[in-house]
This record gives sequence, structure tokens and C-alpha cells, in this order.
Amino acid sequence: MAKENQFVEQIADINADFPQWYTDVVLKTKLVDYGPVKGTMVIRPYAYSIWESIQSEMNVRFKKRGVENAYFPLLIPMSYFTKEAEHVEGFAPEVAVVTVAGGEELAEPLAIRPTSETIIGTMCSKWVQSYRDLPLKVNQWCNVMRWEKTTRPFLRTSEFLWQEGHTVHASAAEAEEETQAMLEIYKDFAENCLAIPVLTGRKTEKERFAGAVATYTMEAMMKDGKSLQAGTSHYLGQNFASAFDIKFLGDDSTHQTAYTTSWGVSTRLIGAIIMTHGDERGLVLPPVVAPVQCVIVPIAARKPGVIEACEALKEELEGAGIKVTCDKSDNSPGWKFNEWEMKGVPVRIELGPRDIENGKMICARRDTLEKTEVERASAVESVKALLKDIQKNMLETARKRRDERIVYADDMQGILAGVEAGNFVKAGWCGCRECEDKIKEDTGATARVFAEGESAETCAVCGKKAQHVIIFARAY
Amino acid sequence: MAKENQFVEQIADINADFPQWYTDVVLKTKLVDYGPVKGTMVIRPYAYSIWESIQSEMNVRFKKRGVENAYFPLLIPMSYFTKEAEHVEGFAPEVAVVTVAGGEELAEPLAIRPTSETIIGTMCSKWVQSYRDLPLKVNQWCNVMRWEKTTRPFLRTSEFLWQEGHTVHASAAEAEEETQAMLEIYKDFAENCLAIPVLTGRKTEKERFAGAVATYTMEAMMKDGKSLQAGTSHYLGQNFASAFDIKFLGDDSTHQTAYTTSWGVSTRLIGAIIMTHGDERGLVLPPVVAPVQCVIVPIAARKPGVIEACEALKEELEGAGIKVTCDKSDNSPGWKFNEWEMKGVPVRIELGPRDIENGKMICARRDTLEKTEVERASAVESVKALLKDIQKNMLETARKRRDERIVYADDMQGILAGVEAGNFVKAGWCGCRECEDKIKEDTGATARVFAEGESAETCAVCGKKAQHVIIFARAY
Repeated sequence: MAKENQFVEQIADINADFPQWYTDVVLKTKLVDYGPVKGTMVIRPYAYSIWESIQSEMNVRFKKRGVENAYFPLLIPMSYFTKEAEHVEGFAPEVAVVTVAGGEELAEPLAIRPTSETIIGTMCSKWVQSYRDLPLKVNQWCNVMRWEKTTRPFLRTSEFLWQEGHTVHASAAEAEEETQAMLEIYKDFAENCLAIPVLTGRKTEKERFAGAVATYTMEAMMKDGKSLQAGTSHYLGQNFASAFDIKFLGDDSTHQTAYTTSWGVSTRLIGAIIMTHGDERGLVLPPVVAPVQCVIVPIAARKPGVIEACEALKEELEGAGIKVTCDKSDNSPGWKFNEWEMKGVPVRIELGPRDIENGKMICARRDTLEKTEVERASAVESVKALLKDIQKNMLETARKRRDERIVYADDMQGILAGVEAGNFVKAGWCGCRECEDKIKEDTGATARVFAEGESAETCAVCGKKAQHVIIFARAY
Repeated sequence: MAKENQFVEQIADINADFPQWYTDVVLKTKLVDYGPVKGTMVIRPYAYSIWESIQSEMNVRFKKRGVENAYFPLLIPMSYFTKEAEHVEGFAPEVAVVTVAGGEELAEPLAIRPTSETIIGTMCSKWVQSYRDLPLKVNQWCNVMRWEKTTRPFLRTSEFLWQEGHTVHASAAEAEEETQAMLEIYKDFAENCLAIPVLTGRKTEKERFAGAVATYTMEAMMKDGKSLQAGTSHYLGQNFASAFDIKFLGDDSTHQTAYTTSWGVSTRLIGAIIMTHGDERGLVLPPVVAPVQCVIVPIAARKPGVIEACEALKEELEGAGIKVTCDKSDNSPGWKFNEWEMKGVPVRIELGPRDIENGKMICARRDTLEKTEVERASAVESVKALLKDIQKNMLETARKRRDERIVYADDMQGILAGVEAGNFVKAGWCGCRECEDKIKEDTGATARVFAEGESAETCAVCGKKAQHVIIFARAY
């Protein structure tokens, strides 16, 4: 770290201007670029690789629960939306509409899917005839579109990529169990793959998915103290099954209406990674999803044998399944250190003539910036152990930071002070919409999630008896 | 095969009504279903799994050539299309247009991408500044939309899934080489993964991609003798680079315009698999992409030990990386044989009490329908060897059939007779558009691909000196 970090100067100070820091990081590390249509983004290879890792980790988990991937059409007849009243109310204002195709005005306008309950419901009503067809569990990885006024790469864009799982069940209990099981899968994934600690639980009625009976969420604390809804799992009851006529012949020979669920995570998760782990030098990527897990920087690269030694090391690590690159560019080592730190690569290896002579190498870890000298002969085991430790440490660090920033409040002033200080605030709530609205108005914080199993005496707003404890925070 | 095949009765006769056979097969094997919007399809899990195998096989090949995956926006401002004159002419009639979004009429209508040269060109003009930024190679897996009048699942639908690769180069030679290299990758993939033999080469000017300098294609012969364009690779010269201002500072410090390529394959490939290998019993899937490579059917399943033996076998095969399922449903073995044959599963294992006693099992291969008795102890090696042999045999069989059906013709009558008989017809061509049009008018056949390196005396239409030999065929 001898040299002045020229990249750090290009990135806004994370403590002084977090939003600008975020924008600088996503653009300068080439994660993303702005698309020509307002509110759209280009997901560049460095971010898309993270998305591919997310997909493959998720797919393993989905498969274990018997979920199969499929693909449903992008365009949905507008009339489908109107079939579930709450759903259309929630999504109609954000929808993009195709009115002309093949040179002709369409008889019925077509919506670009903002989510696919309506079209998947339609197909399921055809596929589900008997209890033998249940449960039915499908998932799709696709693009969706929600026309947003204020946008930010990964966090809120007109178009984004996601997965949406949809299941159909014979009973309410089974569907509710599925909703919970998917939430648990999301939590396991967020914590163990992305090193992002999450709070999980139910949403208030106000924050619920349009058309759901109950929405469950995982909420993550970003470094600025704001909450990010990182994934949701909805118990839809019979709302969509009734609207789309998903009926089946039960094992008792009666005709019954099914119960459905849906659940999704999106490219938002990339935003969550950035804002959970990033620091003044740029990205800090969790090893499990890092596009490059280890970068080798040759020191005194022109000295005989250095490049060859770096190449040999690269091959050895690659052979062990580590995602590794060797930076042979003309830039100085200091420049390279800065660049790969900005890009958040978990482990950097420095290898120069003296190290080679001594059978050593230097390992620098991105999370703590610690440097250690390691035996060259144990390169594979050392790097593997380091990656594992970084993954673990990143989760622990993020969890500790978050837990220190969950506070309690008894009244509105306490909530305001809490969120102003960048905390999650737990407070008693009577359960009425007015008090929930009032908190948002006065503090900008919304009810993120029920703190299940906790209790409070009084509602922080009206002072009446509290029915629940809610975690309030400002949110993305 | 003792029992009458009840499924075969449900599928139209492949020899009597090929189009109906195709429709029956894709629907009854649950590969696909019709979407609610005309011309759209739902890709069901059994087909989507094939698509996922195609993706992972392709991704390995792309990566080796330094191509990185990314994601570009779905919506393209209409004004972008007009920048490359031939391109807009080719695609404008098929485009679906968003005119309303977020409850408001848009100032500029937005096209749903029919292909992404225009938007990727726009981004590349921003990313490419110096020769050091070249070559730039990106690929995206995405949905595209082309409003088609006549549609058929997988072959021609309003929306389909594909990959589109786009590369930018400093020289024409390098871009041309890339175009050819991708064509070779497609050919290798089609032959070795899908067991589909293809003819590769250049397209005539008439059949060229709108905006390309040259289009290269791989053409596959379906069982009805029609050709299916299974993938294309375009050398775009400076057409798009000029229109979208992709310029760079060369190593000689001069400003230069870049050269680009694009190339793609789509879910059409699934249609190609069906129509290359399918038979009167239904699908025949190549092992490399089959969602289920091996099905175990218990014989006399209620006898003690049978289900346990089948489960143990399943675990053993699964542990060896074979995609295997065990059909424990209540249906009869005969019913199961028919069902899994219809679904095209490469290997069926029958395991009953006598086999278990003798340490044997029966293996039936889907491609030749041959049954052999195999030592239970060598199950893994036997199934692996069988899958390998089936993959090889399917390609050889398809190649032999195709080669027997490539004929020569000297005149129009010969071309007509050839295509009527379900052949690919090689014929001399003077090179003029009139003769090409005349062949289409009179025979329904189009120029599929140049037969490079072959020569003929005279044009089959006008009798003038032939400049080229072309393969003509009716096509999907």
C-alpha cells in the first residue's frame, strides 16, 4: 500500500457521499452501464458472471426441492391482469404496453410481464387436473419490466433479470410450508453464498405483494443503514387459483381449488453485495460468487523467470478449481493492486524474484487487507483456506455491524433518531394503517418486517396496546 | 414390445403426416405448450432442460474463444433501427412496439429487440476507444421477438430464446476469421452434442442477414427432407460500425472504423433435434442433451426386493454422473416402455426378480430399439458405453440418411423432382437473382448454402455459364 491509490481518488468517499460512491463503483468497475432507454441498464460481463454464479447456486437448491425450470412468454394480454383485482391495481401503473406488432395495431394491447402470476396461472389451470398433478413447481429465469420513475443500476431499473418460482398445491398448509421453505432457501443462499446476513419474516399488509395473502421477505442492511428487500416469498392462498381457475379432482373425488405460492430474487442482489461489503477502495466480493477469486500480480515482471513462475502458479490454482487470473499488463504493481482491489477480488498473490528464490509468495486478502507470506508449495491449500476464511469473515463482519445497528424505540422521536443515525429500529405497533403511514411520513422509514416472537407494551405512534414488534428502516 | 403401443396411436404417422406428427410429439411429450398470445410458446421443463444443456455446452466453447456473457436491454429506441438502412428494412415489418409505459404515451416508440446489433453497437461505440480495447467479444442469452404470421413451436414463434454473440475487431481479416471460427464451433456443437450433421457455408445475397456483408449458415436436413437453418454467423464488415460510430485509435495513432460480427443459435435447435432423430414412437434424444439419459423400469415391482434393487441401481448410476430416473408409478411396464420411448430417453433398464437373482439387467437402447442383457456389476460402465455409442450412432445414422438424399440436378425439372422426393438438390447457378427467384417460384426450394469448392457447367435455370454450385431445398 506504499503508493497513493489513484483509483480511490476517482471514487467518491463512501462515508461522505454513499449514493455517489455506489454510482462510481458500479460504473468504474465495469459492472454496469446505462442503456439508451431511460432507466435501463447494460449488465456487463463482470456483473453477469456474478449473476451466473447466483443462478447456478440457486438452481442446485431449487432442484433439491423438486422445482423445475421452464420459460413462459414475455407478453401477457392486458385482460389477464384484470382477473385478480388487487394484482392489477398494484402493477397496472408500472406496466409497459405493446400496442403495435408486425406493422399493425393490435386488437388487444399486450403487457410486458412485470411478474408472471397471471400467465403461469393460466397455464397451470390447463396442466392441473387431478391431485396427482400436484404439487406443481416451476421456476423461470427471465427479464421483467416495471416502469419506474427513479432508477438506480441493480436496485431499481425499468428492466431487470430475476427468477420467479411458482408452485401449486392441494392444501393451504402445504402451500404455506412451501412459502416458508423457499424463504429459508433464500436466507441460506444470501448468508452462505453472498455473505449477507438477512432478517426474515412477514411483511405488513401495506407492504404485501399485490394479490398475496401473505408476503415474507428477507431484509438486508446496507452500509448506509438503509434496508434492501433482497428477496420475497408469497403465499397467494386461493386468490390466483380462483381468478385463473386452477381446479383439481381431489383424492376424495371432489372438485377443489388449488393454493399457490410465488417467490423471487433479482439482479438487485448484486446491488446488495456492493452495498453490504464495499469499502473506500471499491468492491469487496464474496469468494463464492466472485468472477475472479484470485489475481496474481508479478513483481519485477521483466526479471527472468517471474512471468513463467506466475503462469505456473496460475495453472496450478486453475487446476484446483480456483477462478484465477494473472495480470501481465504493462501497468505498475501499485496500479494493479489498486485496480484489483477496486474490483473486489478476494485474494491477491504477489510473486517476485525474491519470493521465487525463497519458495514463498505473498497473499493479500481483500476483506481485511492483511498480507501474509505463504509457502509456494502449499499454494492451493493456502488460497483455498483463505477464500473459505474470507467468505466466513465477510458474513461475520456484516452480521456484527448490522446487529450493532438494530436499536429499540418507544416513540416517534426514537424512531426518527434511530433511522437518522442509520439504524434498523424495532418498535411496538398497534397494527393500524394510520400509525404505519404516520411513521413513513415523519421519518421516511417503512415497516420492513415483523420481528416474530418479540413483544412490546405500546405502539410507538399512538400509545395504544402494541400487537406486534416491527423493524422499521429507510429502504431502497 | 409385446404390448400394443398405446402412445403410438396417439401420435400421427410420421410417414403419412410429418407436420401433425411434429405437433403431436412436442405437445404429448410435454416439451411445449401454446401461450395465450398467438404465436407464443411455453417452454416446459422437459424442453427447457435441453436448452440448459445447450447453454452449458455452448458456454464452454464460447469461453475458450474469449467470449464473455453479458446482458443488454430488451427495448431499443426505434430511431436506432433506422441507422443501418438494410437492417431496418429487414426487421421493421416484424417488430413489436411499446408505445405506452408507466401509464403514459412514450415520446419515442420502443422496439422489442428482434436482434441486438443496434443496441450493442451503440454500447460498443462507447466502450471501444483504442486498439487496446479490441477484440471485444460479448454474448447474451436472451429472448427476442419477431412478429410472424405462421408459427410453429420451436421453429418459428413470435418470441424465442437464443444466444447472440457480437464481436468487434481492428481488421477485416480478424473479423472474418472470427465469423468462420464461430461457424466451426456451431458445427462441432451440432454434430457432437446434438448428433445433427450440418452443411456449412455462405448464403446467397438474397438469403443474407439484413445488414451483413456475408452470412454463413449451418443447414440440417430434417426427416421430411426439408432444410432447417440451425445457426448463422455474420460478417458485418463496417456496416454497423459506421452506422453506430465504433471507432478506435489504432496502434499507428490513426482513427479507424472497426469491423464487427454477430452469430446466433436459438431454441430452434430443439425443433432440429426432434425432426432429425424422431421416429414413429416419438422423440429420440441425443444423450449429451437428454434431460433423462436412463430410465429404470422395475419389472414385477411388487415382488420383494425389486424396488430396493432399482433404487440402489439408480443411486449408483447417479453417483457416476448419469441423469437417471426410476419409474415407480402404478402403470404397467408396457405402458412405461411406451411412455419413455415417446419421451426419447436414450437407455431403458428393465430390472425384475429373475434379473436380480442372476445378477443381470436388461438394457434397451432407444435409437436402434435393441435389447441386451448386461451384468449388473458393470452397470455404470455399460450404461456409459451405451450412451456414448448411441450418441455416435445417432450422428452416423443421420449423416448416412442425409448423404443419401443429396442429389444433383441439371435443370429446373431435376430440381423440382429432387425436392419433391425430399432431397437436397445441388445445382449450378449463374449467380443472378432472377434465376434464384425462379427456382423458388417453380419448386418452393430456396438457396440454402453455397457448395464451396464444387463446380458445374451451366446454370440449371438459364443455361448460362454457372458461377457456383448451390444446395437448394425447401426449408423451415
